[in-house]
Amino acid sequence: MLGHQHTVHQHHFGWDNSLQPVMEVEPGTVVEFDVVDASGGQLHRQSTTADVGSLDFTHLNPVSGPVFIKGAKPGDVLEVEILDFGPAAWGWTAIIPGFGLLADEFPEPYLKIWDLSDGRAEFLPGIEIPIKPFPGTIGVALPEPGLHSIVPPRQNGGNMDIRHLTRGARLLLPVWVDGALFSVGDTHAAQGDGEVCGTAIESPMTIAVRFHLHKSLNFAEPRYILSGPPTPEADAQGYYVTTGYAPDLLEAARKSVRYQIEHLQASAGLSREDAYALASVAVDLRISEVVDAPNWLVSAFLPQAIFRRDS
Amino acid sequence: MLGHQHTVHQHHFGWDNSLQPVMEVEPGTVVEFDVVDASGGQLHRQSTTADVGSLDFTHLNPVSGPVFIKGAKPGDVLEVEILDFGPAAWGWTAIIPGFGLLADEFPEPYLKIWDLSDGRAEFLPGIEIPIKPFPGTIGVALPEPGLHSIVPPRQNGGNMDIRHLTRGARLLLPVWVDGALFSVGDTHAAQGDGEVCGTAIESPMTIAVRFHLHKSLNFAEPRYILSGPPTPEADAQGYYVTTGYAPDLLEAARKSVRYQIEHLQASAGLSREDAYALASVAVDLRISEVVDAPNWLVSAFLPQAIFRRDS
Repeated sequence: MLGHQHTVHQHHFGWDNSLQPVMEVEPGTVVEFDVVDASGGQLHRQSTTADVGSLDFTHLNPVSGPVFIKGAKPGDVLEVEILDFGPAAWGWTAIIPGFGLLADEFPEPYLKIWDLSDGRAEFLPGIEIPIKPFPGTIGVALPEPGLHSIVPPRQNGGNMDIRHLTRGARLLLPVWVDGALFSVGDTHAAQGDGEVCGTAIESPMTIAVRFHLHKSLNFAEPRYILSGPPTPEADAQGYYVTTGYAPDLLEAARKSVRYQIEHLQASAGLSREDAYALASVAVDLRISEVVDAPNWLVSAFLPQAIFRRDS
Repeated sequence: MLGHQHTVHQHHFGWDNSLQPVMEVEPGTVVEFDVVDASGGQLHRQSTTADVGSLDFTHLNPVSGPVFIKGAKPGDVLEVEILDFGPAAWGWTAIIPGFGLLADEFPEPYLKIWDLSDGRAEFLPGIEIPIKPFPGTIGVALPEPGLHSIVPPRQNGGNMDIRHLTRGARLLLPVWVDGALFSVGDTHAAQGDGEVCGTAIESPMTIAVRFHLHKSLNFAEPRYILSGPPTPEADAQGYYVTTGYAPDLLEAARKSVRYQIEHLQASAGLSREDAYALASVAVDLRISEVVDAPNWLVSAFLPQAIFRRDS
């Protein structure tokens, strides 16, 4: 716990603009959210691969909230300043059958439990992921009535899995209903751009944010502002980059990740499943070009800083 | 000119593995290439928008070479160490009708001529792009006989437009024919990841590379190695990021760029065309997630360092 005066413990499943807010706050208020992990507590430190196969999908990805921001009206923009995260004690990364960029090639469940209690995220001896927490799911209520799945991101934000929404980032969310009805969940201790296997280092933790309100900006979709280098923790040792070209950008992304998996198997001796999971928590996908028809090109950036170099 | 002993002045159009090499070199050799701009000399410092409409497309994107690397065999990997670039005196950025990520929305030709003679790339007063040269097109001959268009990148590299292939980068190209038959062209003074309007700061310049040979690695597609932070020149002031979500990754990219154009118009007072061209030379596209079905999310990163802050 971070000890802020306003703390939200309640969570809900899916987006529904008829949900009663758990709290009403003025713009400028700091609110702390106690976030359950993306399994909704179904996985724990002693979970095994078998537990991945028996997940109840109706209770995945809870979000804490909703919080009503006074004065927020449709057309406004709710700025969410990401202030701080409580410590993450543990986390999990899973390959869930049917889910992920290479779902057809990884039909079997996989589970990695991370001990984060000493502030480090060791994947295997000699491979350590920099901890950089952010909420995978963060958003406001949709304008449409009814219950909407939490899984896809939309114009309300939601499950955007933007790894750059770390301490100091400012998220700009378009408001669609009175009070915005803000919720947050799905906290991740680390993730690569793309989240290719479908999960990050999924970890329950607390998050503190401050709300600001901008009137009548009428943004169509969320934006965000970073005040400095996006990935200083990963950049220093450079990157080993694989590329994939294809007439379809998704297929280009798939190829770049397949080659990165091959590289991790060959260079670090990882199993295919470990390599896929490691790519999901550490590899960044960049679009190199989307104009040289008919082939687009995606680059998959593996940070060399995650590998310990014994001198 | 950089003054290296081995210098290539000849260029060709398209990939054809029957072309006679202009030079044979041993691995370890440094070779300098005199590169013509992507218009093949059709555009010059005094060109106007009208000249964009009358470009001869059969003479676009010449590449200098090919160079035969002794001992290179199919299955090997040709490592191309990017050593240096001669100074760029001028450059151009164009919107070419029918070409580019938002081609349907920008039907009219546009041309921006850049004066780079003082080592700076000023777009408009108060907006300056860091010069970071790289070859947009760099590759080896294809295994298939005949003449192949230079436009799309393929397993031989080619028109990959990877902006990270700057000084110090090492490109790993799979070899498909004896001697590899290496060519390079399409030098850019700067570009964002994506090259969204279809052109960068297109600029004739010289480039020096050193060749290394790795036997029997059998890579399916090119890879590259960066030894440090990818974009230190752009990172320091942070980024203003727009996002786009869609079931199609290309459409998500389009949306993120449209919102960035709107932002540049609103915040910097640019015309739509200027904003699109500026995005092409400065904005980086990252894939935030490709797993939260049915919507993928692309982030378009605008570096704030390009805007002069008068104190």
